Amino acid sequence: MALTLYHHPHSRSAGIRVMLEELGVDYEAKLVDLQAGEQRRPEFLALNPLGKLPTLVDGDTVVTEQVAVYLHLADRFPEAGLAPAIGDPERGSYLRWLVYYASCFEPAVVDRSLKRGPAEPSVSPYRDFDSMLGAIEAQIERGPWVLGERFSAADVLWGTALNWTTQFGLVPETPVIKDYIQRTQARPAFQRAKELDAALLAAA
Amino acid sequence: MALTLYHHPHSRSAGIRVMLEELGVDYEAKLVDLQAGEQRRPEFLALNPLGKLPTLVDGDTVVTEQVAVYLHLADRFPEAGLAPAIGDPERGSYLRWLVYYASCFEPAVVDRSLKRGPAEPSVSPYRDFDSMLGAIEAQIERGPWVLGERFSAADVLWGTALNWTTQFGLVPETPVIKDYIQRTQARPAFQRAKELDAALLAAA
Ligand SMILES: N[C@@H](CCC(=O)N[C@@H](CS)C(=O)NCC(=O)O)C(=O)O
Ligand SMILES: N[C@@H](CCC(=O)N[C@@H](CS)C(=O)NCC(=O)O)C(=O)O
Repeated sequence: MALTLYHHPHSRSAGIRVMLEELGVDYEAKLVDLQAGEQRRPEFLALNPLGKLPTLVDGDTVVTEQVAVYLHLADRFPEAGLAPAIGDPERGSYLRWLVYYASCFEPAVVDRSLKRGPAEPSVSPYRDFDSMLGAIEAQIERGPWVLGERFSAADVLWGTALNWTTQFGLVPETPVIKDYIQRTQARPAFQRAKELDAALLAAA
Repeated sequence: MALTLYHHPHSRSAGIRVMLEELGVDYEAKLVDLQAGEQRRPEFLALNPLGKLPTLVDGDTVVTEQVAVYLHLADRFPEAGLAPAIGDPERGSYLRWLVYYASCFEPAVVDRSLKRGPAEPSVSPYRDFDSMLGAIEAQIERGPWVLGERFSAADVLWGTALNWTTQFGLVPETPVIKDYIQRTQARPAFQRAKELDAALLAAA
């Protein structure tokens, strides 16, 4: 099998499993037991020296970093239509909101989870928490999806990310965010991923 | 002119100017006087609600977030060969090391500049500073470029980022890093960007 996802259902690879289900492609999900420290085994560190999930092996290529894995998969299987093609006027916006997760949302959520303030607004890469959240919220409010009428890989990422961060109380569950989470979670691929993950954990 | 870069030479948009010079395309660089607070003017906040540079306007599309701007420009002008095409076996690695800057390097450098430790290694998105730096250093040591023999947009980003972070003492100037910085800075586009930036500041 050409695609192998090193995976744990309770980790940043959860949305990548949803992505693979949205694409409808063949892949193997290999459970990495984070509690048991399997991510620090030499075989795994040879793939990803940081010992992190998600890690995707696609033939001879290793892709790490959540946002890079979404970008890679969406373009690799264009038939599924989860990325505006290069040259499409929406491409820039698609890239912007996927990268925004890594360059703004995640640093803000990490700061919040560690109960530490951001750097001063002009130095902080995400300005401040409320501005950061306000920008993505305005984008999904225009909706129904991040790119408007068109569902994309950005929604797999944001649907997954907002779901777990609201559950952990790190992001407020505003009506706009709650509706968006429901819209994404209602998709068959999100449901299928949940069932497959439950089965994977039960088998382990 | 179709491409407008909202820019300041002493900001994260510096490398985007180099990128535009590497591509050899027409663009306008509009100086945003960060000291004077021009990034908080309503016209600018309408483009980027976080009031941040770089912000690129490409026709009707606004692209923010440094890494997204590199990804966008490299694919938009494929003739320059600064991105492996979709389907090229190096594409995944290219995406990995560009996103790594946003998801690992920048959080690590921000933590270091604020003199605060990372979260514990299993929670921190970049594990710890030395592992984070070791991974990219190993990649450029194989070199001469991030993707080996092939120069790409990833080198414009990493050449720029390692240059300023070593100058600020945030990243140690190991022999591998020093050589890599010299290799990138020696390119005509890096030199041209430096001259254009000096002229832009002098005119202001
Ligand atoms: N920079 C990485 C962060 C990935 C990450 O931190 N993954 C966590 C799980 S959510 C992990 O694998 N932790 C296990 C460990 O570090 O021991 C990305 O963007 O994908
Ligand atoms: N998340 C943004 C961060 C950009 C950023 O923080 N830019 C700084 C300059 S290096 C800025 O515009 N600061 C001005 C301000 O916030 O007032 C990215 O990845 O591009």
